[in-house]
Amino acid sequence: MTRIEIYDTTLRDGAQREGISFSVLDKLHIAQKLDEFGVDYIEGGWPGANPKDNEFFQRAALNHFKNARLVAFGSTRKAGVAVESDVNIRALLESGAPVVTLVGKSSAPQVEKVLATSLEENIAMVADSIRYLKSKGRAVFLDAEHFFDGFKADKDYSLKVLSAAEKAGADCLVLCDTNGGSLPEEVGEAVRAVVAVAGVPVGIHAHNDAELAVANTLAAVRAGATQVQGTVNGYGERCGNANLCSIIPALKLKIGLDVIDDQRLSRLADLSHFVSEAANLAPDPFLPYVGHSAFSHKAGLHVSGLSRWVFAYQHIDPAAVGNKPRTLVSELAGRANIIQRAQEIGVALSPRSAEAQSLLERVKQLESMGFQYENAEASFDLLVHRAGPGYRAPFELIDFMVVIEKRRRRPTIACEEEEMMSEAIVKVRVNGEVMHTAAEGNGPVNALDLALRKALLPYYPALDAVKLTDFKVRVLEESTGTESLVRVLIESSNGAEEWHTVGASANLIEASWLALVDSLEYFLLNRK
Amino acid sequence: MTRIEIYDTTLRDGAQREGISFSVLDKLHIAQKLDEFGVDYIEGGWPGANPKDNEFFQRAALNHFKNARLVAFGSTRKAGVAVESDVNIRALLESGAPVVTLVGKSSAPQVEKVLATSLEENIAMVADSIRYLKSKGRAVFLDAEHFFDGFKADKDYSLKVLSAAEKAGADCLVLCDTNGGSLPEEVGEAVRAVVAVAGVPVGIHAHNDAELAVANTLAAVRAGATQVQGTVNGYGERCGNANLCSIIPALKLKIGLDVIDDQRLSRLADLSHFVSEAANLAPDPFLPYVGHSAFSHKAGLHVSGLSRWVFAYQHIDPAAVGNKPRTLVSELAGRANIIQRAQEIGVALSPRSAEAQSLLERVKQLESMGFQYENAEASFDLLVHRAGPGYRAPFELIDFMVVIEKRRRRPTIACEEEEMMSEAIVKVRVNGEVMHTAAEGNGPVNALDLALRKALLPYYPALDAVKLTDFKVRVLEESTGTESLVRVLIESSNGAEEWHTVGASANLIEASWLALVDSLEYFLLNRK
Repeated sequence: MTRIEIYDTTLRDGAQREGISFSVLDKLHIAQKLDEFGVDYIEGGWPGANPKDNEFFQRAALNHFKNARLVAFGSTRKAGVAVESDVNIRALLESGAPVVTLVGKSSAPQVEKVLATSLEENIAMVADSIRYLKSKGRAVFLDAEHFFDGFKADKDYSLKVLSAAEKAGADCLVLCDTNGGSLPEEVGEAVRAVVAVAGVPVGIHAHNDAELAVANTLAAVRAGATQVQGTVNGYGERCGNANLCSIIPALKLKIGLDVIDDQRLSRLADLSHFVSEAANLAPDPFLPYVGHSAFSHKAGLHVSGLSRWVFAYQHIDPAAVGNKPRTLVSELAGRANIIQRAQEIGVALSPRSAEAQSLLERVKQLESMGFQYENAEASFDLLVHRAGPGYRAPFELIDFMVVIEKRRRRPTIACEEEEMMSEAIVKVRVNGEVMHTAAEGNGPVNALDLALRKALLPYYPALDAVKLTDFKVRVLEESTGTESLVRVLIESSNGAEEWHTVGASANLIEASWLALVDSLEYFLLNRK
Repeated sequence: MTRIEIYDTTLRDGAQREGISFSVLDKLHIAQKLDEFGVDYIEGGWPGANPKDNEFFQRAALNHFKNARLVAFGSTRKAGVAVESDVNIRALLESGAPVVTLVGKSSAPQVEKVLATSLEENIAMVADSIRYLKSKGRAVFLDAEHFFDGFKADKDYSLKVLSAAEKAGADCLVLCDTNGGSLPEEVGEAVRAVVAVAGVPVGIHAHNDAELAVANTLAAVRAGATQVQGTVNGYGERCGNANLCSIIPALKLKIGLDVIDDQRLSRLADLSHFVSEAANLAPDPFLPYVGHSAFSHKAGLHVSGLSRWVFAYQHIDPAAVGNKPRTLVSELAGRANIIQRAQEIGVALSPRSAEAQSLLERVKQLESMGFQYENAEASFDLLVHRAGPGYRAPFELIDFMVVIEKRRRRPTIACEEEEMMSEAIVKVRVNGEVMHTAAEGNGPVNALDLALRKALLPYYPALDAVKLTDFKVRVLEESTGTESLVRVLIESSNGAEEWHTVGASANLIEASWLALVDSLEYFLLNRK
């Protein structure tokens, strides 16, 4: 069975999507996740293009990937420049990445109209750059830009570029549908023509401008391509790149190719959600295979059909990709889940008990107020404990106040910190004592955090170890602008373990406060 | 040149999308728009399934469509029921629609497992129903449910259902990939087999569960199908139906088939936006051909390429589908994008000028501070204007202060509004006057918004029309918890047009303030 290699470019081409701006840390986390999932190559960025990508490669070099090889992306040497002295080529070497993907033009009209150099010089640029990087011990893939458009315009030239690359030592010839407008038949025909003459593996890099990126990728694989490039969730410039979350299950479950093992495939939905979280984009519920709605059934006809036969209205078993079927009745947590979770944290609730009933109603009420517990189990666990009769909170809020001041500044210029003042005053009861503390912080939530810790540390010195490692804000009703209901998710860590808490309110300071208090209370509770 | 018929089912299958609920009026407006656009058939709903659909057909009968024929959808008679007395069939006749599409099973396993009747009875159900409706003067299309899965499981039976339908008088045999999991090769092969034996036109109805609905539809057309069913924007159950907004331009511009005239095709983006508005869904900016981002260019490489050749990074001329190219300003972008964008708003900058250079540096500096202009064009435009020598801001901030208080509440319980107090005090200079105003709001940003408007409305009453329609918060450096740098994006509208502004700071109140001020300043600027 042919082995198909998966090449992920979420961190480079995916980051071209309008609205995505990954931090270096986002990129490191995603790379880690991609490696665990089992992709073969992780394209990290374009060294030299911006400082962020340089930092990424420095820090990624310290990671030890289990499955994947790290790839640096860049272009061939400039026209009329010696390859050794080309800054871009030098940046690729300095990135330290073991694999380099070089973008080079393989379309005659593109060379003449856009690159504005001679057809011969373009071929020399491709060959010199590959030969030089190979001489430095790198694996080199050619990213044959505009290959399919070029193949239609001047077949011979496009093939000439590829054979020059192969002679220069390229390890893979990746055919790009850069403008994303090709049709599957065209892609299949061109790939067949290349595979017939190429002595090295052939890859496919498709874009979704005609809503055909997945089909074009599958057509290329049928025609002999063995490396598939794409991004998680199909993120990418314009209409996006080929969506690996749709391609991987199609290759494995529908075409039966060797691409990734079953156990990893069952984490596909998890990978998809992780990356959308890192990009701070709401997961697209309508994504094939991995979307929240991908196996949801609204029509009564379908729901009753499914009750008779699981494949009545499902093209695959949702579990194979880590998804599950839903019947569109209610979104709210069912009684069973709540009992189940309570048991997991050692709170015995009998399904029909009054406690179970009131807890269920409480969860529904809070969810209707914007709370969401599926990514905030610590807050949910607190809810369960608080529902118990004997619960005593480690501290209780009496009052808080926050003052934010901005002085003598034109509003149109981003400020330096010292020009903003954020101060919080907190009054809490701890072990019967009333603590009244104040602190100044870097923003209002930070000020609240510091003031609260001032009040609690004398009683709970262990709190010193707790760090808030992530802070996410989502607006729930987008219709009402600054009056929107907001949800704050906080991730905390004591170095050893992480926990997640949630707060929701029309007031984002209060939403943040609720999540903050849950974080500290949860930590104190679990130390007992 | 073969004529391909377009059959729109946005009002029936499209309405199955999670979150869509059309009113009768919505449906009438959409039908009107589809007719003007020039589709051949408009499937209005399922008479008898719900009162809404009955009312729709009553009222739509009064419309005089210029191009389209109205279609009622329903299922064949029930098993063991005489066709004349089948309530569902009667509702189809009472709808008064000149065309009826009947869904009937064409897959042996579906008949046995789900319908739970005999293979023969299923064929009789299909044939009786068609014959009866034909005898009442209706055109009848068979919607061959699960055809492609059935063709794989028991080819002969699936073809038997079709020939029975044809003998009974069906005017078109529509092959459905009901579960949406088929591959283009499978669809092409099955359609070829049907077209080889069928004496009537063949249609295709695809779903997008494998992200292949458009490819499967094109494969069916290549194999001889002449009726294409789909929905505007690909709305539909689960992952959606075949997207007519991607299929129509592919058939016309890429395959060269006769489907719709150029002038109508140039209103495709308008149709797409109209339907998303009617569905009360934000238009998906990443939709091929019609999306706001479909021809947006972020990478500097691409922008400079486009300035040399319009097809350098575009697969079609955006104007052909009523769309237009956009240049995104971002850290990934170079000088070319910024010059380009400045020109788009009528500020001429020569590429090598000092102004261009300092503006470029300013953008890079602000982006390194967390600002991001690609989805905040209004803020970028202000940046350009402010860079100009003669710019005078319509108002200037002197000070602001925000106080948020929470009193006497256990922090662990989500609060009612009255228990939180948010108050803002603003001092601004307007036309040389200093305005000092205060307001209480539903959260700190809302309070700032109200206080600022209090100060400005006496001078700029037109501001009353400005509403903040969306408010997004993104935490940039996730490593530092509550000290994170945050970016706020605000969407504003005056009813007629929308604009987007950005603010960034370690203090989310300040980030919100900066975006808020830009929104109002941009509005005032553009009124002059």
